[in-house]
Amino acid sequence: MVVIIEPKATDEQIQNVIKHLEDYGFQIHKSVGVQNTIIGAIGVKPDFDIRKIKILDGVADVYRVTAPFKLASRNFHELNTVIDIKGTKIGGNEIVIISGPCSVENEDQIFKLAEIVSKSGAKILRGGAYKPRTSPYSFQGMGEEGLKLLRKAADKYGLLVITEVMESAQIDIIGKYTDIYQIGARNMQNFPLLKELGATNIPVMLKRGLSATIEEWLMSAEYILSSGNPNVILCERGIRTFERYTRNTFDISAIPVVHKKSHLPIVADPSHATGYRDQVPPMARAAVAAGADGVMIEIHHDPEKALSDGPQALLPETYLKLIDELKTIAAAIGRELN
Amino acid sequence: MVVIIEPKATDEQIQNVIKHLEDYGFQIHKSVGVQNTIIGAIGVKPDFDIRKIKILDGVADVYRVTAPFKLASRNFHELNTVIDIKGTKIGGNEIVIISGPCSVENEDQIFKLAEIVSKSGAKILRGGAYKPRTSPYSFQGMGEEGLKLLRKAADKYGLLVITEVMESAQIDIIGKYTDIYQIGARNMQNFPLLKELGATNIPVMLKRGLSATIEEWLMSAEYILSSGNPNVILCERGIRTFERYTRNTFDISAIPVVHKKSHLPIVADPSHATGYRDQVPPMARAAVAAGADGVMIEIHHDPEKALSDGPQALLPETYLKLIDELKTIAAAIGRELN
Amino acid sequence: MVVIIEPKATDEQIQNVIKHLEDYGFQIHKSVGVQNTIIGAIGVKPDFDIRKIKILDGVADVYRVTAPFKLASRNFHELNTVIDIKGTKIGGNEIVIISGPCSVENEDQIFKLAEIVSKSGAKILRGGAYKPRTSPYSFQGMGEEGLKLLRKAADKYGLLVITEVMESAQIDIIGKYTDIYQIGARNMQNFPLLKELGATNIPVMLKRGLSATIEEWLMSAEYILSSGNPNVILCERGIRTFERYTRNTFDISAIPVVHKKSHLPIVADPSHATGYRDQVPPMARAAVAAGADGVMIEIHHDPEKALSDGPQALLPETYLKLIDELKTIAAAIGRELN
Amino acid sequence: MVVIIEPKATDEQIQNVIKHLEDYGFQIHKSVGVQNTIIGAIGVKPDFDIRKIKILDGVADVYRVTAPFKLASRNFHELNTVIDIKGTKIGGNEIVIISGPCSVENEDQIFKLAEIVSKSGAKILRGGAYKPRTSPYSFQGMGEEGLKLLRKAADKYGLLVITEVMESAQIDIIGKYTDIYQIGARNMQNFPLLKELGATNIPVMLKRGLSATIEEWLMSAEYILSSGNPNVILCERGIRTFERYTRNTFDISAIPVVHKKSHLPIVADPSHATGYRDQVPPMARAAVAAGADGVMIEIHHDPEKALSDGPQALLPETYLKLIDELKTIAAAIGRELN
Repeated sequence: MVVIIEPKATDEQIQNVIKHLEDYGFQIHKSVGVQNTIIGAIGVKPDFDIRKIKILDGVADVYRVTAPFKLASRNFHELNTVIDIKGTKIGGNEIVIISGPCSVENEDQIFKLAEIVSKSGAKILRGGAYKPRTSPYSFQGMGEEGLKLLRKAADKYGLLVITEVMESAQIDIIGKYTDIYQIGARNMQNFPLLKELGATNIPVMLKRGLSATIEEWLMSAEYILSSGNPNVILCERGIRTFERYTRNTFDISAIPVVHKKSHLPIVADPSHATGYRDQVPPMARAAVAAGADGVMIEIHHDPEKALSDGPQALLPETYLKLIDELKTIAAAIGRELN
Repeated sequence: MVVIIEPKATDEQIQNVIKHLEDYGFQIHKSVGVQNTIIGAIGVKPDFDIRKIKILDGVADVYRVTAPFKLASRNFHELNTVIDIKGTKIGGNEIVIISGPCSVENEDQIFKLAEIVSKSGAKILRGGAYKPRTSPYSFQGMGEEGLKLLRKAADKYGLLVITEVMESAQIDIIGKYTDIYQIGARNMQNFPLLKELGATNIPVMLKRGLSATIEEWLMSAEYILSSGNPNVILCERGIRTFERYTRNTFDISAIPVVHKKSHLPIVADPSHATGYRDQVPPMARAAVAAGADGVMIEIHHDPEKALSDGPQALLPETYLKLIDELKTIAAAIGRELN
Repeated sequence: MVVIIEPKATDEQIQNVIKHLEDYGFQIHKSVGVQNTIIGAIGVKPDFDIRKIKILDGVADVYRVTAPFKLASRNFHELNTVIDIKGTKIGGNEIVIISGPCSVENEDQIFKLAEIVSKSGAKILRGGAYKPRTSPYSFQGMGEEGLKLLRKAADKYGLLVITEVMESAQIDIIGKYTDIYQIGARNMQNFPLLKELGATNIPVMLKRGLSATIEEWLMSAEYILSSGNPNVILCERGIRTFERYTRNTFDISAIPVVHKKSHLPIVADPSHATGYRDQVPPMARAAVAAGADGVMIEIHHDPEKALSDGPQALLPETYLKLIDELKTIAAAIGRELN
Repeated sequence: MVVIIEPKATDEQIQNVIKHLEDYGFQIHKSVGVQNTIIGAIGVKPDFDIRKIKILDGVADVYRVTAPFKLASRNFHELNTVIDIKGTKIGGNEIVIISGPCSVENEDQIFKLAEIVSKSGAKILRGGAYKPRTSPYSFQGMGEEGLKLLRKAADKYGLLVITEVMESAQIDIIGKYTDIYQIGARNMQNFPLLKELGATNIPVMLKRGLSATIEEWLMSAEYILSSGNPNVILCERGIRTFERYTRNTFDISAIPVVHKKSHLPIVADPSHATGYRDQVPPMARAAVAAGADGVMIEIHHDPEKALSDGPQALLPETYLKLIDELKTIAAAIGRELN
């Protein structure tokens, strides 16, 4: 922590600041300049509330020295985390494709779509069985019935399963069917849920909150990691901005930033980020060009009848064409995708 | 729902749009102007995803006609909801004061503070026993032990209790000790939690999410109301903006807007909104001047030693002085506070 | 400036950082802790681009020590700036009211409104003659003809004049008629305009930009001050947020923050902040309760026919009633208003 | 315009709304449903302030039917605008590269960099001579001397010139040296400047404002177009969000959205968007993959000594390597770049 003293602070005020820092257990280094005095306060307290010092008389400002996350930081884990799930590797040189419908709706739908997913070369089948909906009057998902269908369809085509968990009470039942838990944007700071998923040994894909900073997102990953589960995948799905022509603003720059700050893999979700089918292909291409470790794409064979998010689902033919484009771009930047 | 047709749309496109609307069960009214055709689609489907129409060829734009919430709307409930808890009324002409520490820390602390709360004329004692913290390494609350102390202290001074519930698994135990459940900003869209609190008969205070619109906030209230619990109090606690000199931006204009759109009472929380002690009094005064039905203020007798949010806690003497100012302002606008 | 060295930085990297700092002319203070090394770099360079150091190998982060503004800072000017314009004082204990129409429209309109302004006890008449409009097809103001009418109406009722200047070419002509130049939100960072207004001796009211931080706003004030004009008034008029039920979000917390950071007076503009007539009174009351040095309120005797911003204009009777409420609140916090 | 009537509105209120609409010159179409009445108000008034109707009693909401821009809209200009400047085409199938330093600093610098720009195959040399700086104490550009050097360097290597204009008073002098005027983000809504550039016959590149929506950006383009200058290029340079690890958030999704809504070409500026050298290459690749018509990249042969924005400038070798990557990605999506 670095404490900037006000130019006109008195000696008594400075002594008082130092006393407080020492009482809180910090080691002190004081630098006196012509205009400013700076106090370096050293000691490992990642969760210290710096406002405690900021409000003292004579203090101009206070900065944290260390990032508040540690297990998620590349500083303490230099190599990329590569998560191996039954032979499929996430975070390596190969870019992973995750596809499927927004919600599992019935047996016919999920089997049809699983076949297309498999045909595209994608490795992971997505599908929601418990749906977080803004309106209490909207379709809330098929529940365990949906989980069973999702697993059966994935098994038939040799795919892995990813599906969303909304609350601690669902962890066990979903764990029986899934290979990866997904945490939705609205639950990014549902701390009890993060801790309980951290106590399982199933990988977790953590979506970024609607207006979360990357630091807050990595802090949420830290919750899972510090509870014992090292297999965390980050997923950028768009942030809220003032723009109204898109559903959210897909923050593609989060991809190189996460790669710099953290060792965890990052997947891009252009479907939720844009909200409209015609914007998904350019944004999926951009995500691969920017270095995403995976792309999650919603598809539907009859999107007009989809029970949720139909307008952002790609039709199978558009989807298969897009995967081909992504392969060319992956090759152009030295990554594999097949 | 209103569908705006593009100026250059063909007749086939317009027919196709109309067919879709009819298939979705809407009644159609078509208005043809010189430049624009407008289609009114009428039928009660509050959760219809308007993007389904927006993506059809020939459609320029689509707007919802009705607000997506109903039970929370003043349209369907003209008079203010007044919640009566053991004789204390929230939402009436009297402005209610809620005070206490951020967290319950020990018996001495909570009893000392309850005494001050009582002395100020406030009716409700706040105190967290389960704390949502950004860092997994921070103090996470005393748990049930804290609830017991909070209840004992409140009972000694004839106060009501409000405390935060973070997940469904805590509902029963907290329900044994509290008069009002508090839902924190990060849980505003924790839909399973909202539904389960909606199934209790204890009033709920719902904080606005960090970057939630007022419409989304009222939709979350709708979740609780539609699950059977009519006693919802809204709480404005600041929203995230680009400003860095304050912790959050206290959206005081939410107060008259909520009063216009909804019949539910609204409480202001200047402590979390500003994050710094010296900004709490002017913002508390502003909230009362703008028409808040209640004000929640964090206090601490030794804020430097507080286990959470000490920098925003008022000292007892500042707090008592502030309450006096609030009384004068309440009188100036014809409200009671005592 | 404070430079935080990465835990795993090599000695060569640290030496290289120090060499760079010295080459840029800074004095160095190095503090070595168990985990972190911190380098204090001292020397007065308010505009140094800290990214120059941030991108060096081995650097974890860099913070500025001093605020980038100086003349606008309370650190270097402890007492409030009180601007005296022909006997009316802005920034003293008395709260100043500025009222009038959005645009000057014709002689009858501005004289009618000036009479009401005068009757309310307000000291300053506002009215736009050059209007910044989002659409090139909207009414763009009466130009010099409007300025003449504004001055005549103000003189008849003994009022001061404030009106907006949009570009350098308008400075001279507006200067002939006005007592205060107003800079609109969209011009807050029109640096040539700021410099040229800084070279006049007429006071300037600087509105906060739509998504400007308070620091950026004070930096813009610094442009005017450093060009020689000490008479700057700040005006909070709402910032852009995600909320759609209000036009902007009125950041009332900016009032105590500006008072803490700066010695310049701050006026609140609830009309532009909210955009709707019925929200102006509660927000005007809140601004006074929070400590504003002045309030600017748009009025119109026939708002349905107003050429701009009619929906946010108060009717004369509502306006006069509001002024009475503001007087009571001013008294409640020990300020004068008459 | 579409007016939604409140469910409980009286007949008198509805008649009053209709009377107002007719008085404002609209044609009326009324649709009565079970719950809602909708009034379509038709007539070409792109700048009508819909709040005038929104505030009437009995009105639930009002929506605009037509986009507020016309000349910038693809609805009225189906084919892409291709701007031909001395044989270089912007907006066609070929992707245009614009490179050079942030500021022109001296003869040696600009000639060295022009040589590299030319070597890369780029067609346009950038360089600022008048600089908008947040601080009045920062380097403000070389002025006309810089313009002369920029022109000479461009001419030597057969390049076009683009440079920023900050105020109307600079238009003539800059016009003598440049092939394209650049309008910076902070001037996006400097309406007098837009109008005066609209009266020239030199193409204009209009950067998006820091927190502007795409609609507002196209409205600003409309100002230039409606003043007579059809040659407008849009430039996405990052928007302000809550993220602090990047300087701005590069809104790559603006590229396909602009292509859908408008016929004007769009260029991406990853240098200002990210603010840090190491994030420029992934973001430049992403912009090309998403369909940008051009990319603007800042370079410097000695960025540590650059007088402005050195930390975001690419070194020549990184720049040349990036151009090669961009060529491969352009080829992958069927665009040319050479």
